[in-house]
Amino acid sequence: YAWVTLTTNDTYSLGALVLAHSLKRAGTAYQLVVLITPGVSESMRQRLKEVYNIVQEVNVMDSQDAANLALLARPELGVTFTKLHCWRLVQFEKCVFLDSDALVLKNCDELFEREELSAAPDVSWPDCFNSGVFVYKPSLDTFDKITKFAIERGSFDGGDQGLLNQYFADWAYVDINKHLPFVYNVTAYASYCYLPAFKHFKDKIKILHFAGKMKPWLMHYNAQNKTPSVPTQYTHATDLIQLWWNIFFENVHQRLNSSMRYCSATLTQWKNNYDLRKQRQQIQQQQHQLKSCTNLKATNLNLKYNQNYSLITGYNERLGDDDDDDGRLGWCFISTTFG
Amino acid sequence: YAWVTLTTNDTYSLGALVLAHSLKRAGTAYQLVVLITPGVSESMRQRLKEVYNIVQEVNVMDSQDAANLALLARPELGVTFTKLHCWRLVQFEKCVFLDSDALVLKNCDELFEREELSAAPDVSWPDCFNSGVFVYKPSLDTFDKITKFAIERGSFDGGDQGLLNQYFADWAYVDINKHLPFVYNVTAYASYCYLPAFKHFKDKIKILHFAGKMKPWLMHYNAQNKTPSVPTQYTHATDLIQLWWNIFFENVHQRLNSSMRYCSATLTQWKNNYDLRKQRQQIQQQQHQLKSCTNLKATNLNLKYNQNYSLITGYNERLGDDDDDDGRLGWCFISTTFG
Repeated sequence: YAWVTLTTNDTYSLGALVLAHSLKRAGTAYQLVVLITPGVSESMRQRLKEVYNIVQEVNVMDSQDAANLALLARPELGVTFTKLHCWRLVQFEKCVFLDSDALVLKNCDELFEREELSAAPDVSWPDCFNSGVFVYKPSLDTFDKITKFAIERGSFDGGDQGLLNQYFADWAYVDINKHLPFVYNVTAYASYCYLPAFKHFKDKIKILHFAGKMKPWLMHYNAQNKTPSVPTQYTHATDLIQLWWNIFFENVHQRLNSSMRYCSATLTQWKNNYDLRKQRQQIQQQQHQLKSCTNLKATNLNLKYNQNYSLITGYNERLGDDDDDDGRLGWCFISTTFG
Repeated sequence: YAWVTLTTNDTYSLGALVLAHSLKRAGTAYQLVVLITPGVSESMRQRLKEVYNIVQEVNVMDSQDAANLALLARPELGVTFTKLHCWRLVQFEKCVFLDSDALVLKNCDELFEREELSAAPDVSWPDCFNSGVFVYKPSLDTFDKITKFAIERGSFDGGDQGLLNQYFADWAYVDINKHLPFVYNVTAYASYCYLPAFKHFKDKIKILHFAGKMKPWLMHYNAQNKTPSVPTQYTHATDLIQLWWNIFFENVHQRLNSSMRYCSATLTQWKNNYDLRKQRQQIQQQQHQLKSCTNLKATNLNLKYNQNYSLITGYNERLGDDDDDDGRLGWCFISTTFG
């Protein structure tokens, strides 16, 4: 049995590091696996190896030839295929996939008693499951079938969630045991939150999932009093965001070093820009500057960590880019500083 | 078998009238029942009787004595109790309750094959069912039990949805057949909408539910070209909102008459006020004027219908008021005119 996550760049790797520590903190008995893509730097890979049992690079192009040919015509499926690689971990009998923006609050080892494909309902269209947490059985045959299905049918939302819901199409109606209780994948996405229910069930939450654009690592953190500045829309989850940062500060922060890739010159001027929406136009203009920054990769992500404990994370993406698969439109840019 | 809805005032009764016509349009074989409270005017009751088989007044205070005593100490449960009266329709073997802000798009008579309590998951906390559409078995015994449960335990959200989810607490985990497919209760509430899923499943939607503050009857309607002005956040559902208005215009509109209660003097000045959020403060100030208007009841609702085809609907409420049971904060004020 193994917990499996995926990270495509150094910023999401921060999430993956906290996720791994949260699993250990909850006393899991099982192994931890992280799939990475070439966008993860060498020094970050070292950090991941310190806490994950297996750090395995996957590449969208190492699937079989037939798939590759079709992929050439449908490059938008590349990121989707990356997540499918989790089915190739056939050294494990069963796995639970967790998005790297999840935080495990309590021991969830009982999830491995569930069958493929078990997942919790998605907020907003609850006859679809959310693909941020799911129980599955690794199998090369299943990998091939889903890959072929993806090429033939595509994904209704352009991401892995649409694809997996189309492939496991009977999830909503056939077997209640494949409906994970929502407490295994509670979306912290503020505008989707049913506050009275969140308060009523809060003590039962086992896994919190920072779906949507706002991530804990994008919030400002005050290293003096060790508290994050939680956006007003997320105040219902303040203590859980505090937990994310406690884990980050105690277990991850001191392991990071100055060899991380950075591109501070362009980003520092944005340092105090927290007003996301009003600055959208400005960000669009500045994107061109960013793209000319030689250290910045196509992922549009950047991490600076220097000697006087200053971490600056730049992050921006548009509809359909990167990990977000749900078609919600939004922009984020927040810088985080230590010290 | 019967379809059952509830309306507490003349404005929601417009929804109930359209709902009834939508059920007939979909060719239902079963009877229509509307529960009303004293807030519904006499002329509106006549309109309801033209399309509903049974128009039955219910009163929060006509429950048994023990409940009444407790209610005196917990007046906030009054509205919740009103909906529970649907269990007293024991002349029917089985019923489906529909909120009056629902719109039936296709024949749903197969719902009566389901058992109590069958309902669709709520967006935003999908281990709760949404109490806007549910299959139930009328029973005085069940009515008594839920009433007693409510008095002892309250409702986690202060409304019927929290109460019913606490009473039917095993809904999420026991029987998949009690999970109605989401297409039987699709929330049109814009900020909760997962657009790719809405588009993918749109043709399968059977019941659209205008949960939240924005209702079709609060949108401006142009009687010349027979189209409603759909707020930008609801454009994905434009054709369905158009359907609501088509039914309203063809089946309901000409039956309304000038004897409807109105209070135009105060409201007319707001006629062109469509910017909801910016006007919130202004509305709060003007509430005091509204409350001094002799024709306006405690429901804060008002309907004007005069000889030159001008319908002005004023509507405003705050967190926890009236039919909204989900704790989402919001204000609405839109006037509707027929030219």
